Amino acid sequence: MIDEISMKIRADELIRMALAEDVTSEDVSTNSVLREYAFGTADLVCKQEGIVAGLPVFARVFELLSEGGVAVEMRAKDGDRVKKGEVLARVSGDMRAILTGERTALNFLQRMSGIATYTAKMVRLLEGSGLQLVDTRKTTPNMRIFEKYAVRVGGGGNHRYNLSDAVLLKDNHIGAAGGVKQAVAAAKAYCPFTMKIEVEAETLGMVKDAVAAGADIIMLDNMTDEQMKEAVALVGGRALVEISGNVTAENVARLKEIGADVVSCGALTHSAPILDVSLKNLRPVDPEAFFDGADEA
Amino acid sequence: MIDEISMKIRADELIRMALAEDVTSEDVSTNSVLREYAFGTADLVCKQEGIVAGLPVFARVFELLSEGGVAVEMRAKDGDRVKKGEVLARVSGDMRAILTGERTALNFLQRMSGIATYTAKMVRLLEGSGLQLVDTRKTTPNMRIFEKYAVRVGGGGNHRYNLSDAVLLKDNHIGAAGGVKQAVAAAKAYCPFTMKIEVEAETLGMVKDAVAAGADIIMLDNMTDEQMKEAVALVGGRALVEISGNVTAENVARLKEIGADVVSCGALTHSAPILDVSLKNLRPVDPEAFFDGADEA
Amino acid sequence: MIDEISMKIRADELIRMALAEDVTSEDVSTNSVLREYAFGTADLVCKQEGIVAGLPVFARVFELLSEGGVAVEMRAKDGDRVKKGEVLARVSGDMRAILTGERTALNFLQRMSGIATYTAKMVRLLEGSGLQLVDTRKTTPNMRIFEKYAVRVGGGGNHRYNLSDAVLLKDNHIGAAGGVKQAVAAAKAYCPFTMKIEVEAETLGMVKDAVAAGADIIMLDNMTDEQMKEAVALVGGRALVEISGNVTAENVARLKEIGADVVSCGALTHSAPILDVSLKNLRPVDPEAFFDGADEA
Amino acid sequence: MIDEISMKIRADELIRMALAEDVTSEDVSTNSVLREYAFGTADLVCKQEGIVAGLPVFARVFELLSEGGVAVEMRAKDGDRVKKGEVLARVSGDMRAILTGERTALNFLQRMSGIATYTAKMVRLLEGSGLQLVDTRKTTPNMRIFEKYAVRVGGGGNHRYNLSDAVLLKDNHIGAAGGVKQAVAAAKAYCPFTMKIEVEAETLGMVKDAVAAGADIIMLDNMTDEQMKEAVALVGGRALVEISGNVTAENVARLKEIGADVVSCGALTHSAPILDVSLKNLRPVDPEAFFDGADEA
Amino acid sequence: MIDEISMKIRADELIRMALAEDVTSEDVSTNSVLREYAFGTADLVCKQEGIVAGLPVFARVFELLSEGGVAVEMRAKDGDRVKKGEVLARVSGDMRAILTGERTALNFLQRMSGIATYTAKMVRLLEGSGLQLVDTRKTTPNMRIFEKYAVRVGGGGNHRYNLSDAVLLKDNHIGAAGGVKQAVAAAKAYCPFTMKIEVEAETLGMVKDAVAAGADIIMLDNMTDEQMKEAVALVGGRALVEISGNVTAENVARLKEIGADVVSCGALTHSAPILDVSLKNLRPVDPEAFFDGADEA
Amino acid sequence: MIDEISMKIRADELIRMALAEDVTSEDVSTNSVLREYAFGTADLVCKQEGIVAGLPVFARVFELLSEGGVAVEMRAKDGDRVKKGEVLARVSGDMRAILTGERTALNFLQRMSGIATYTAKMVRLLEGSGLQLVDTRKTTPNMRIFEKYAVRVGGGGNHRYNLSDAVLLKDNHIGAAGGVKQAVAAAKAYCPFTMKIEVEAETLGMVKDAVAAGADIIMLDNMTDEQMKEAVALVGGRALVEISGNVTAENVARLKEIGADVVSCGALTHSAPILDVSLKNLRPVDPEAFFDGADEA
Repeated sequence: MIDEISMKIRADELIRMALAEDVTSEDVSTNSVLREYAFGTADLVCKQEGIVAGLPVFARVFELLSEGGVAVEMRAKDGDRVKKGEVLARVSGDMRAILTGERTALNFLQRMSGIATYTAKMVRLLEGSGLQLVDTRKTTPNMRIFEKYAVRVGGGGNHRYNLSDAVLLKDNHIGAAGGVKQAVAAAKAYCPFTMKIEVEAETLGMVKDAVAAGADIIMLDNMTDEQMKEAVALVGGRALVEISGNVTAENVARLKEIGADVVSCGALTHSAPILDVSLKNLRPVDPEAFFDGADEA
Repeated sequence: MIDEISMKIRADELIRMALAEDVTSEDVSTNSVLREYAFGTADLVCKQEGIVAGLPVFARVFELLSEGGVAVEMRAKDGDRVKKGEVLARVSGDMRAILTGERTALNFLQRMSGIATYTAKMVRLLEGSGLQLVDTRKTTPNMRIFEKYAVRVGGGGNHRYNLSDAVLLKDNHIGAAGGVKQAVAAAKAYCPFTMKIEVEAETLGMVKDAVAAGADIIMLDNMTDEQMKEAVALVGGRALVEISGNVTAENVARLKEIGADVVSCGALTHSAPILDVSLKNLRPVDPEAFFDGADEA
Repeated sequence: MIDEISMKIRADELIRMALAEDVTSEDVSTNSVLREYAFGTADLVCKQEGIVAGLPVFARVFELLSEGGVAVEMRAKDGDRVKKGEVLARVSGDMRAILTGERTALNFLQRMSGIATYTAKMVRLLEGSGLQLVDTRKTTPNMRIFEKYAVRVGGGGNHRYNLSDAVLLKDNHIGAAGGVKQAVAAAKAYCPFTMKIEVEAETLGMVKDAVAAGADIIMLDNMTDEQMKEAVALVGGRALVEISGNVTAENVARLKEIGADVVSCGALTHSAPILDVSLKNLRPVDPEAFFDGADEA
Repeated sequence: MIDEISMKIRADELIRMALAEDVTSEDVSTNSVLREYAFGTADLVCKQEGIVAGLPVFARVFELLSEGGVAVEMRAKDGDRVKKGEVLARVSGDMRAILTGERTALNFLQRMSGIATYTAKMVRLLEGSGLQLVDTRKTTPNMRIFEKYAVRVGGGGNHRYNLSDAVLLKDNHIGAAGGVKQAVAAAKAYCPFTMKIEVEAETLGMVKDAVAAGADIIMLDNMTDEQMKEAVALVGGRALVEISGNVTAENVARLKEIGADVVSCGALTHSAPILDVSLKNLRPVDPEAFFDGADEA
Repeated sequence: MIDEISMKIRADELIRMALAEDVTSEDVSTNSVLREYAFGTADLVCKQEGIVAGLPVFARVFELLSEGGVAVEMRAKDGDRVKKGEVLARVSGDMRAILTGERTALNFLQRMSGIATYTAKMVRLLEGSGLQLVDTRKTTPNMRIFEKYAVRVGGGGNHRYNLSDAVLLKDNHIGAAGGVKQAVAAAKAYCPFTMKIEVEAETLGMVKDAVAAGADIIMLDNMTDEQMKEAVALVGGRALVEISGNVTAENVARLKEIGADVVSCGALTHSAPILDVSLKNLRPVDPEAFFDGADEA
Repeated sequence: MIDEISMKIRADELIRMALAEDVTSEDVSTNSVLREYAFGTADLVCKQEGIVAGLPVFARVFELLSEGGVAVEMRAKDGDRVKKGEVLARVSGDMRAILTGERTALNFLQRMSGIATYTAKMVRLLEGSGLQLVDTRKTTPNMRIFEKYAVRVGGGGNHRYNLSDAVLLKDNHIGAAGGVKQAVAAAKAYCPFTMKIEVEAETLGMVKDAVAAGADIIMLDNMTDEQMKEAVALVGGRALVEISGNVTAENVARLKEIGADVVSCGALTHSAPILDVSLKNLRPVDPEAFFDGADEA
């Protein structure tokens, strides 16, 4: 999860770059009409039902842009199911910063919430089975930290973060090694003992070999439901079993019966549509009155 | 468009960061089984019909990763309509680099092709009308250079690149200025004379004011089809007219009759599903034989 | 303009790099004599009459260097005409930070004020004509954000910010396209509809073609005063007219009669001498007494 | 001097940033009219007499932009006195890269040549005296590596590069230490033994103290010519003597008689006007014929 | 391992920064005496027996510094046991680049070889036992990629790379969770299923709990040899057993009898002295003769 | 020395990079068990006698990680001789930040304290002689700012910081120039007058030449004690004399009699073992009670 600490270490640079992508010199529209500092407040309004994710990122955009000049008062938190018309937060402070940061902040929030919403929908379809839904490395370049977090917020789990933190031996690796046994043995010899080794198996023979070689996880690739059930029986709990391949909201439910541990799904991060959220009703406010009001509330 | 020059100036850093996002230390799986340099070749295969976009980015990933150790021989070019099973390119060279760069290269290519495909679909729906389809600033953070290019490849046009290169006066700006006339006057006084000024109009009165104030473009927001037609008549060619707001493949066709110049659509970049493309059939090859074969072909 | 927001997005990195350029390890002179924290105050004194520009940048240098350890109390603001001997600001806080940041802060302020002063001088020469003086892209590498702002502070306007935010078709572009009409048509087809198109015309024929092709701005290059007047008449308000080419304080006045809209001048940013400003009279102060005094003032 | 090595270590990043400053997305004008690769050649022409400096930087801009796609064939070298109309180099290759890099390359070259030209002019005024002209730290932020090199090319010398590589004790440091002797002693105790210690002296008494304390260099500040001569006599070769303060082309000649070793001058880098140089006559060429021609030449 | 690919993704930036750390402006000594390009060659000589590690990094320093201007011809490879006086490589090319890069290249090579040498020494002490020696996260800041590689070259293995790629529950984590079982359960619920979970156990009770909770690895902390043997028996192969805590060359041998799988040792990376290697006998060579000679050899 | 100012300019980036090196996504162990903010406190405990160095860097790690969420209350200061068991500081605040930053903060502190401790040991061996112990450029890549500071804290001095701030003419430079006199003359002509020139002399003849040529410092290389004494006599105070070459704690004492000014030692930075320091006894605390307690203390 991106807690505040990971945010500072890993997300800040990406947020700053996103702001710079949107501002080469200045926000010419805003600065044309707001020549002086003006205090204002606006509402972050949800325009579609779904699961919200990325509120801390949304707030961090304004923090980095204004160094304290804009405050975001949350009315919802990541993971909440939100409704059309619901106010998720109130953004108050320097109106120029609010207008300049608006699009960047929303671009993060909408995409992350879209992923959480899509994930939650698929998780619901698997309810009651022991099957955990996880993501893949099919994320948008330079958005992985945000997208994998959004999957978690939506109730899914994460697969390995990247090429360096777990072994996944696919057909090409197995071919290069000369077989499943050789590939697993090579990985055991080569990799840190702290790493799990996963093998992608296309046949029951490969499943057997992988179990015998001591693989920690076996991914069933391109098998029929029957073959998958057989594979699960064959593994018999000696390794975790992962199902993969073109899983979507339309076809995920039938996988509940397979008996596997995990199902991975690239669509969670590469094809989820956004959740529509917008910043509405920016109005000038007397900061003093505003903060008094806040105290009373 | 991202030509090779913009690629070097603007895209290289983002590609390098994407590679680093996927490799903290090394690709443990590949390096387990390929301890030595080995020459191989693989096919970039399309798994879905669509418009391909991002082939130069795909190739650049391997160039930056291997400094000449991997060559990408193109069989298609950006903008081509490609079919399921079609080989788009052949990737040859250091097998470790091919395996390590594969996911990052595909993540760029799939998303860009998805956007081009979705754009092309919508452009076809507008065929015959003079209405140009354009994108918005609702792009994925740090992906704008790639996504706006993909819209072009798909046959769409681009709206302003960011907050600094054109003026777009929305309700909040107009409110802050005290009205349409004041807002346009403020922008004329403030901004470089090389910039166009666009005004978002919610009523016919605002359209009139915007034309009178000398706006270059008028965006019709939240109007009925009838109102939009009236607005177009009212503008009478003195400004470009843009239509906006929740345009999708489902509802775009009816806009052909309005008489507007441009229709903008956020979904092009924020909600297009990817186009499925993958790297297949990596096999070791004798580099000498390989290059001889290449000569003959 | 560089407001505080653009400062954070775009200027901070450049200011940090400028500080690092001046400090490889530490300020050996200051640290030799000031081994402990000591509170002091110094005056920012103007040594030459002119227009001051860059005071927020001057202050930001100390902010980034000391994170609140140095305060800059302004006695003037950007755009003020300042006199020899005038105190522009009072810098108070950690004496080591004041000494270490002094040169970098002054290097920004002096150059920006030099540009504002030179611009203001030329603007005065055009007073009463409707001719607006603007800058060019002939700025110091990595100083554009500061230099274009200084031109504004001096009363000038800005031409396009860079190669990406407006079209300017010069002789080479026109030659490559095969003529003015073709070049303008190519730009209309290629560029975002939000961009203006400017054409550089060397003959009256080219002016005619440019107007006919729908150019938004026409730049008259290398024409006699008579030709320029004819060109203005020929355009007849259908496009903005820009004059360019070796404009200096010495020769600008005669251009008032031409009837053009804009005159651009590279010298504003590439050859303005600095305005001499320095930090004087650093003295240790008792911080408590100091802040009491501040309260009373 | 910036040799090719320092260029790679220190200048490349600044050149890349300068290119990015001028290109947010792409060069819209060039890409409008040149949709395909086209080979061309252009002349780098001097438009004013002066000393050229920065040709390797000029060439490096195109190298970084095109990775070998543009070649710069030199006809002059840094330090040459060049004439109006002289062709300094021929730039050949991808016409789009030539047009996109032109302004950035010229912005470096013009400023550096301006500094070299101004320096050479002042050096000539000191000819025959043993007095060496040197620069200061009053350089443009993030341009020091280029500007100090240009001073060298113009025949001047360099003062310390920055705050970390030599000790210069000014009035504030001396005040903080409690006197010249204490300041020099503090620096000797604090700083690496590899560093020279310079003292800024305002009175003959301070000169005496500095010599006695073992200063390596004494800077005479704000003294009359008579006082300076006395100071030189007083030092008697036990330290180097530097003269400073508002030295310009107008007043430098009279300093020849003082007997000092070095005179420093901020104007070399902060107020030299550029030398006008431009890229002319870009024309498409058949690359084959072109390179044949080159072989014959 | 750092293959060439990881080098480009992860090491290049660190190497460039190290070069910049050593060159603020230029190598003043080298550039004083070598004003022109001169071709030369030098020998990389080992001055102490040990295991060499980092030769590709050594070579990469010159590659990044000279873009092909310096070639490193290897006479040894990483992992070789080298002797005093042995020539490890021959460095040929631009003498200025050789002199400027020398120290940085050696600083990498000496430290990495020192680590490999120390590791190999300890590995030898464990020979014949099944106990694998591994490193820790006690690496030098920003040197982890190089140091963990050197441990591998010396025959050791790697523990987790960083805080993100495996779970290690220490006393503080266990305390916060309320016990071993709760901590392991929390990690299983929270972390990707691809991660192993390690528990640090201080008592046999904790060992039992960890096994029962399904920990993959158990680290024995601060136990006597007897307790460790008991713990190993207790685990009975259901988890890997790691020994830790102040292991050095002096005390490692007695651990062979414990029966554990892995022993981790911070000293490998935090306290290994360097291996002395130096660049000797730089001499100018006629490049033509030199390359002829190379062909013959 | 790294004061707070240099820390911000030069160390912050390196500290941020070190944190990112240890956290790819998040600290999975900590975040598994601490799902919510929890306030805690821990003790920084010394486990070995030595000289502590790097406490401000240790604290800065937490500052950059938590933006004020963790406070470090110092009980010792850099340069103090500390004992086994001594509490050096108390770290209080967000327990997740404390656990996530712990290793990075300790990696800096342990290495820096190890260097200070080793330096202090060698300085003591030279006590009473006028011989100053200094470091070299044999530092860990990207750690120079920290390591040279640690040498100072341990009582040593610094040699030149890098290749750009002083001239050191070694055998290769002298060979290239054609002799000592030519080399010194070349450096005097080439380098800023603010730089000292050091010559490495292998024979008494070279010492003589160096003095005659006006070298500021002479380094005696590979001489016997007798030769060194002769060399010192020969120099007769006209230059500083530096001794160099494989100086260690074992052999340094005999150099006291030579009469040289400075002895340089690479081992200070390249082979000092760390000083063992650790963070102990993290416990949850009621923040209110905690801060009350702090007030009373």
